[in-house]
Amino acid sequence: MNYLKRLLVGKPLKSSENDDQSLTRFAALAMLSSDALSSVAYGTEQIVVVLVTLSTAAIWYSLPIAVVVLVLLTSLILSYRQIIHAYPHGGGAYVVSSENLGKSAGLISGGSLLVDYMLTVAVSVSAGAEAIASAIPALYHHRVLIAVVIVLLLMLMNLRGLRESAGFLMLPVYSFIAIMTVLIIVGLFKIVTGMVPINATAQPGSFVPGISIALLLRAFSSGSSSLTGVEAISNAVPFFKKPRAKNAAGTLAMMGIILAFFFTGITFLNYWYGIIPSEQVTVLSQVGESVFGKGIMYYIMQFATALILAVAANTGFSAFPVLAYNLAKDKYLPHRYQDRGDRLGYSNGIITLALGSIALLMIFQGSTERLIPLYSVGVFIPFTLSQTGMVKKWYSEGGQWLRKSIANIIGALISFSIVVILFIYRLNDIWPFFIIMPILIYVFYRIHKHYQNVAEQLRLADEVKLHEYEGNTVIVLVGNVTQVNIGAINYARSIGDYIIAMHVSLDENSEKEKEIQKEFKEKFPDIRFSVVRSPYRSIINPVTRYVDRVSKKSKKYNYTTTVLIPEFVPNKAWKLSLHNQTALRLRLRLSYRDDIIISTYNYHLKK
Amino acid sequence: MNYLKRLLVGKPLKSSENDDQSLTRFAALAMLSSDALSSVAYGTEQIVVVLVTLSTAAIWYSLPIAVVVLVLLTSLILSYRQIIHAYPHGGGAYVVSSENLGKSAGLISGGSLLVDYMLTVAVSVSAGAEAIASAIPALYHHRVLIAVVIVLLLMLMNLRGLRESAGFLMLPVYSFIAIMTVLIIVGLFKIVTGMVPINATAQPGSFVPGISIALLLRAFSSGSSSLTGVEAISNAVPFFKKPRAKNAAGTLAMMGIILAFFFTGITFLNYWYGIIPSEQVTVLSQVGESVFGKGIMYYIMQFATALILAVAANTGFSAFPVLAYNLAKDKYLPHRYQDRGDRLGYSNGIITLALGSIALLMIFQGSTERLIPLYSVGVFIPFTLSQTGMVKKWYSEGGQWLRKSIANIIGALISFSIVVILFIYRLNDIWPFFIIMPILIYVFYRIHKHYQNVAEQLRLADEVKLHEYEGNTVIVLVGNVTQVNIGAINYARSIGDYIIAMHVSLDENSEKEKEIQKEFKEKFPDIRFSVVRSPYRSIINPVTRYVDRVSKKSKKYNYTTTVLIPEFVPNKAWKLSLHNQTALRLRLRLSYRDDIIISTYNYHLKK
Repeated sequence: MNYLKRLLVGKPLKSSENDDQSLTRFAALAMLSSDALSSVAYGTEQIVVVLVTLSTAAIWYSLPIAVVVLVLLTSLILSYRQIIHAYPHGGGAYVVSSENLGKSAGLISGGSLLVDYMLTVAVSVSAGAEAIASAIPALYHHRVLIAVVIVLLLMLMNLRGLRESAGFLMLPVYSFIAIMTVLIIVGLFKIVTGMVPINATAQPGSFVPGISIALLLRAFSSGSSSLTGVEAISNAVPFFKKPRAKNAAGTLAMMGIILAFFFTGITFLNYWYGIIPSEQVTVLSQVGESVFGKGIMYYIMQFATALILAVAANTGFSAFPVLAYNLAKDKYLPHRYQDRGDRLGYSNGIITLALGSIALLMIFQGSTERLIPLYSVGVFIPFTLSQTGMVKKWYSEGGQWLRKSIANIIGALISFSIVVILFIYRLNDIWPFFIIMPILIYVFYRIHKHYQNVAEQLRLADEVKLHEYEGNTVIVLVGNVTQVNIGAINYARSIGDYIIAMHVSLDENSEKEKEIQKEFKEKFPDIRFSVVRSPYRSIINPVTRYVDRVSKKSKKYNYTTTVLIPEFVPNKAWKLSLHNQTALRLRLRLSYRDDIIISTYNYHLKK
Repeated sequence: MNYLKRLLVGKPLKSSENDDQSLTRFAALAMLSSDALSSVAYGTEQIVVVLVTLSTAAIWYSLPIAVVVLVLLTSLILSYRQIIHAYPHGGGAYVVSSENLGKSAGLISGGSLLVDYMLTVAVSVSAGAEAIASAIPALYHHRVLIAVVIVLLLMLMNLRGLRESAGFLMLPVYSFIAIMTVLIIVGLFKIVTGMVPINATAQPGSFVPGISIALLLRAFSSGSSSLTGVEAISNAVPFFKKPRAKNAAGTLAMMGIILAFFFTGITFLNYWYGIIPSEQVTVLSQVGESVFGKGIMYYIMQFATALILAVAANTGFSAFPVLAYNLAKDKYLPHRYQDRGDRLGYSNGIITLALGSIALLMIFQGSTERLIPLYSVGVFIPFTLSQTGMVKKWYSEGGQWLRKSIANIIGALISFSIVVILFIYRLNDIWPFFIIMPILIYVFYRIHKHYQNVAEQLRLADEVKLHEYEGNTVIVLVGNVTQVNIGAINYARSIGDYIIAMHVSLDENSEKEKEIQKEFKEKFPDIRFSVVRSPYRSIINPVTRYVDRVSKKSKKYNYTTTVLIPEFVPNKAWKLSLHNQTALRLRLRLSYRDDIIISTYNYHLKK
């Protein structure tokens, strides 16, 4: 068991090794940008698909829409760079919103993002599994299984630790970056050298009958799904090499530039080559075919795309545990999300995310496309809140707040518009948001209330006064008269002033009961022997009643009460199943009684 | 939770209410004979199907084969009546074989039957589910689910207790008995009055080219599957009203007569009416159609057959728990199979059987026909062993042993022949028997060895000498300095002579550690405060090491060592998840250390 864990997860790391375990920019880009970069695989398509519902001539509108998306991207990147510098301990939207707009805004951000990371993992992994299944059709019926296996692999990788998973992710991410760069450069080269004449469905600016603001807004809101994943870096600042904020901001800028280049490039090529979306082949694949022809380069591109989609899920694995940690630190999630595992990752967060996304995969049986609008809402609400928060922060800090705020104001406005557009035009996809979020917020507050109550109850008075007890009553549970009793009674005598051996008899006045009583009296003449009868065969209730009675009496004499439960500890784990688990249940029940200490006398079976 | 249990299972019964909870002959027949009686639904068919592989003319051989089956049945019934009188405490084949032929023979019988009862449940319930699905074709794809639901219902019924489940079973069993009786009487009446002339495929005694002993033996071994279930009554003697043995023997005789009448009747009608087995319609259904015509009586018969097949599974639920009880009493199965539940049933046996047969249903997806030969082997091996055992018993008791043995000798010989025939002609169906049985026997012996070892280790010397300790060292685990510490330290002082407060620090030399140390010293100036550092963040290892050190020292001073672990007990169960389960894991680990008593100080959170 332990060996298996070591094999899969690696040897434990010291807490002080934390510093070594941090990311260079180069590794961080691989680790944290796959979500954002992989979305260029479908970003352009999302815009064009909406536009062609009107007519193919409307495709030219993808160019101005791409410009607005770029403006949004720029403002987001600038805004998140400011957030990184202002909050170098990480936390992103949750921290920024709660510090500037109040706890509820923070929790809405945090809750949305928690759910969103699960969606990211489910959506990306099932896209990856589908890509694999397209390549090997025999696997088609097993794609949910494949997706689950990928999630489990990602989980293990992340439990092994950051640096090692970054190493694993370098290849897919940098391959994708390389091949996309080649695609766009070759594509533009062919255009500039006149090798490919314009083939567009319509000139920019041509009037398309039936065009409406609503359609353009829907196309824009769809296209902005490319921008999900941008916040990942700001959440993960503490993982960077020092100087952390500077390195994180640099990585974010780099990612923004690459993303902008890819998105514009692909949208432009798509327009110029006059590509019309089809059911079977993705837009990106059509662009690739037009530029490269259906040769080796095309297949490399397809493969790299499939790979980056599969690993995009890893962004969720980096960001979710840190966000859960921040929520747990503020007492809105269970404490355990603060614990670091053997390899310094926040293991509980990693495991929760894996289980959550596996559940989503099971529920939707791998058809996760419908989740994309939900996913966009979950991203743009925190975007809006965190940027509004930044504006408020600059304002409250005074000085040249408007200059600092300009990126944030634009970002907040555009993000907010997207949220509104999604609410209006995509309600039939995003309604679960309005069910999940209130529940989540309620749970956060209940947890918080509990921890507050506990803290209040535990607070010590300034002057602590200890109580002096006169002595201790020990009740020793006795089954048959065996070797176990000797050890238990010896211990009881070492701590107790008054010892009672208690025997539970299942049959009333049976022979066996009398026999045991006689034998006990013979072997232990000085110990009081007390029989508790259990006509209903459950030993729990009669024991509890008897212990209550003794404890009440003890209290009167200013004694404490200890119940000593002997338990077998076999030398092999399977043998545990051969002994009744009554002790466990009894301990559980007694744990609810006041003023009773439950002690376990472990008797080790040597063979 | 508790309420739900009461609702489903009923209020607990006193152990002394055991006597009321026993069966009249009338109820016992319903309760224990459904397995045997339901097998007439397919017994004749099993014979005829084998014969027609040669030619339809061979069907007349079913008559002599039926005679041999009747001989076998008679010898089995007589033999089991003797077993009932000789072993009025129940146990059947397992007890008889182990007492007379040695433990291994007993365990082979017991093991075969345990597996067999699971097979019975799975086979009968899926036959019942298929009957329901034939009636309502929309349910066809859910028949595994239906089967599982039936198993769970049977489980609940049996957990509720014997009498109540017998009540529930009266209707199907007695309806089936009634309709079969009517079928045979009407059928014979029509023959005797000459309303139906003989329509048989061949006269008895006609020569059928190609007939071979092998074919006849296979037909006979198939037909004897009707005799499974006969042993159920001898296992369940303790459930009968007093005088138990007499009532059980009477019920068994009654069941034998009914079974013989049905089996002969149906086989004869089948021969006379010249019915040839077909894929779609069962032989019994064809007989019914010929006798009744396709009217209301026919449908009643079909429905009653489906019902009794479904409840035949209940025989397993009566017999399995008693057999498991007997094996557990002899220490070949875990003790817990001896525990009676709230309603006096052996709950663990009932639940194990339900889970086992649900597993079989899942694995075979409801296509359990292939299990029938396996099931026959599992029945006839214990038959052979128990009857051989009876012969040996009579022989060793001397006197007119041969007269008493005659039924047993015949029964043993025929049963043994069937086993041999099955081994020779059905090896491709019964091979799992040769894998399961050795494993099971091995497990039985391992369990037995363990219990023997335990008993040996626990045996007390004639003279018990208690040890006098000088005092007690108490190690109190301390997290933050809170209210919890007061109670824990108060208790520790009441039992201990030397108190150590131990704090685990996760970061080396951190600020927090120093702060806690200072605060503790301030509040509890008289208590020794000890810091244990955990560079790997797991508190388990360092604590264990520290406790080991203290315990070693304590021992030198003739002190006992107690580790007091404070634990939160929230007022609501869900809140348990909000507190780290470290205490649980720590307790588990420490339970393997020698000479350490683990005590829990439960701090109750009031809100």
